[in-house]
Amino acid sequence: MAPSKEVSIAVIGAGGVGSVFLQQLAHVANNRPSQIRLVYVAIVDKALYHTDYKHIEIATALSALEATGRPLPSIPQTIEYLSAAPGKVIVVDNTSSQQVAEAYPQFLRRGISVVTPNKKGFSGSWKLWQEIFDAEGTDGSMVYHECSVGAALPIIGPLKMLVETGDEVTRIEGVFSGTMSYLFNNFAPTEGSGGKWSDEVKKAKQLGYTEPDPRDDLNGLDVARKVTILARLSGLPVESPTSFPVQSLIPKELEGVDSGDEFLTKLSEYDDQMEAYKAAAEKEDRVVRYVGYVDMASKQAKVGLESFDKSHPIASLKGSDNIISIYTKRYGNLPLIVQGAGAGAAVTAMGVLGDVLKVLERIR
Amino acid sequence: MAPSKEVSIAVIGAGGVGSVFLQQLAHVANNRPSQIRLVYVAIVDKALYHTDYKHIEIATALSALEATGRPLPSIPQTIEYLSAAPGKVIVVDNTSSQQVAEAYPQFLRRGISVVTPNKKGFSGSWKLWQEIFDAEGTDGSMVYHECSVGAALPIIGPLKMLVETGDEVTRIEGVFSGTMSYLFNNFAPTEGSGGKWSDEVKKAKQLGYTEPDPRDDLNGLDVARKVTILARLSGLPVESPTSFPVQSLIPKELEGVDSGDEFLTKLSEYDDQMEAYKAAAEKEDRVVRYVGYVDMASKQAKVGLESFDKSHPIASLKGSDNIISIYTKRYGNLPLIVQGAGAGAAVTAMGVLGDVLKVLERIR
Repeated sequence: MAPSKEVSIAVIGAGGVGSVFLQQLAHVANNRPSQIRLVYVAIVDKALYHTDYKHIEIATALSALEATGRPLPSIPQTIEYLSAAPGKVIVVDNTSSQQVAEAYPQFLRRGISVVTPNKKGFSGSWKLWQEIFDAEGTDGSMVYHECSVGAALPIIGPLKMLVETGDEVTRIEGVFSGTMSYLFNNFAPTEGSGGKWSDEVKKAKQLGYTEPDPRDDLNGLDVARKVTILARLSGLPVESPTSFPVQSLIPKELEGVDSGDEFLTKLSEYDDQMEAYKAAAEKEDRVVRYVGYVDMASKQAKVGLESFDKSHPIASLKGSDNIISIYTKRYGNLPLIVQGAGAGAAVTAMGVLGDVLKVLERIR
Repeated sequence: MAPSKEVSIAVIGAGGVGSVFLQQLAHVANNRPSQIRLVYVAIVDKALYHTDYKHIEIATALSALEATGRPLPSIPQTIEYLSAAPGKVIVVDNTSSQQVAEAYPQFLRRGISVVTPNKKGFSGSWKLWQEIFDAEGTDGSMVYHECSVGAALPIIGPLKMLVETGDEVTRIEGVFSGTMSYLFNNFAPTEGSGGKWSDEVKKAKQLGYTEPDPRDDLNGLDVARKVTILARLSGLPVESPTSFPVQSLIPKELEGVDSGDEFLTKLSEYDDQMEAYKAAAEKEDRVVRYVGYVDMASKQAKVGLESFDKSHPIASLKGSDNIISIYTKRYGNLPLIVQGAGAGAAVTAMGVLGDVLKVLERIR
């Protein structure tokens, strides 16, 4: 069933997602012994590769990289190297690097397919988005980025299918951040009273649910990036993730604070602000949530706090789950809803691997 | 971006789904003028095709079929005809025919890909399932049947991806029938008291939500077929849709009744039976729903009535929506949930077309 042409794979990044991806790839490659040739693995400062493109044993790639890695080549050097690799080439970008994302058009123009959970390439400037999709197709190159929104949850693939078959998106709404989901499900639960805002933020950080500096979650940019991607796929050429209204949950007074730790220490002084949102919602027997919207009729995107009836699926979300509702002409009043873990190394790596398998199926 | 190799397409069936599929295909084909050659369209008793494989104008195919169709060739004749069509061939089965489904292995062995919403091929005997997937791959032939469960909802594709990347399904539960969803959301709503069972069945029939004979929904076989497909994809080799417990909602006393109409007339005499289920659930502040299960730990599938807490997503379903929860090792306690319209001509045709586009992308 599976195509058996040999394909060269390059993996950039071996953090939480990248290292689990390599484990999962090793499992899959065992079932396709002659198809997958790992020719390049890189971390932030070094890379492992052989000038004769000898296959790197996947299961031990990271320890080999640690032991015998060479200084990281530049991106143009990497592209030169990969261009001559056996068969078609897939580069898997498991970083969140802006620099790597900006190189996607160069990879694609050389016939190298790109698979990535990195949001930067698809949620940065409209120009970069256009360059990526203009370059896609050169010599059969493909781009897959399912995990740039909601990890492995089936969102981007189905959304592209809807549009390609002639359906029209009318509205998208959802909770797009596992961190925000966790924070609000605990701060303003549908049953019980919930904790103090600053306590919930501290707890989330301790559990590893936030970025090292929680302000990188609370500023809303992560959600704005995902909304940007969904808007563009729906046909709205959003200029950038800062070109539409995004409500930051960082108190104005703390915007200039130097460190994330200092921010966390001082955050409790401003709990009143979030408490006010919560109380206003409670008055109407509702709960407050941090959501993103794309509205195709008014051609607007928006990210921020909204209140929801307690029976609304967005209100009754659990843990750090994401939920995405896609309203279209064909689906009518009841949207297509996808819900589940939108972050975490295992599911993100799985979604990336799923995209790699799609490229393998399509490679000619 | 799109591959431009010419592909011949044969469409069998032009009922609700089939006719809308042709409209949608016409729209897509306009954007890929030289790629799609419609070489065969058939309804129950006739077919339109040209011995020189001249392209049939898609937008007017049905009226041309009506006017100039020839007697329906046999399946072996159809396969002979299609085997010599230009380029690779895709047969789109928009019927619910057992006979066509049983021919899938023959199509596939001749290199003809199969795309279909027809459940019969995948939920019949285990032997037919094996024959289909053994034959898949011959000369690059492919099988796509996303719409055999939940119409265009992303269920089968994502489930296959989970398994292929090494995740393990632990449990699947859901409401798999739009008819059953509508009936129970109205018979036992989470708010208010709901109607009498027999009245709801009559209303559903009037609205066109049931099969012509509502017993074809109430016997549970449709749900059992979908559960069979999901179980098999999860790795449970279910023998047939009648090889596990399926609760029929047809009162024993009415099993022998001749016509659907007589059945509907007499159904109200047995409303007590369904009322008892509803009352038992209400006593615990719950509601009754008709659900399907696959449990991988106990290796069992099951279809029937269950009660749910009113805050459970299955309880708060609306309209005739489906909901499917997939629990896996990687997703842990909070499943991947997909919800939305699982029936209807527009969304089903769209899902079929989405599958056709996947085949077009993969054809070499």
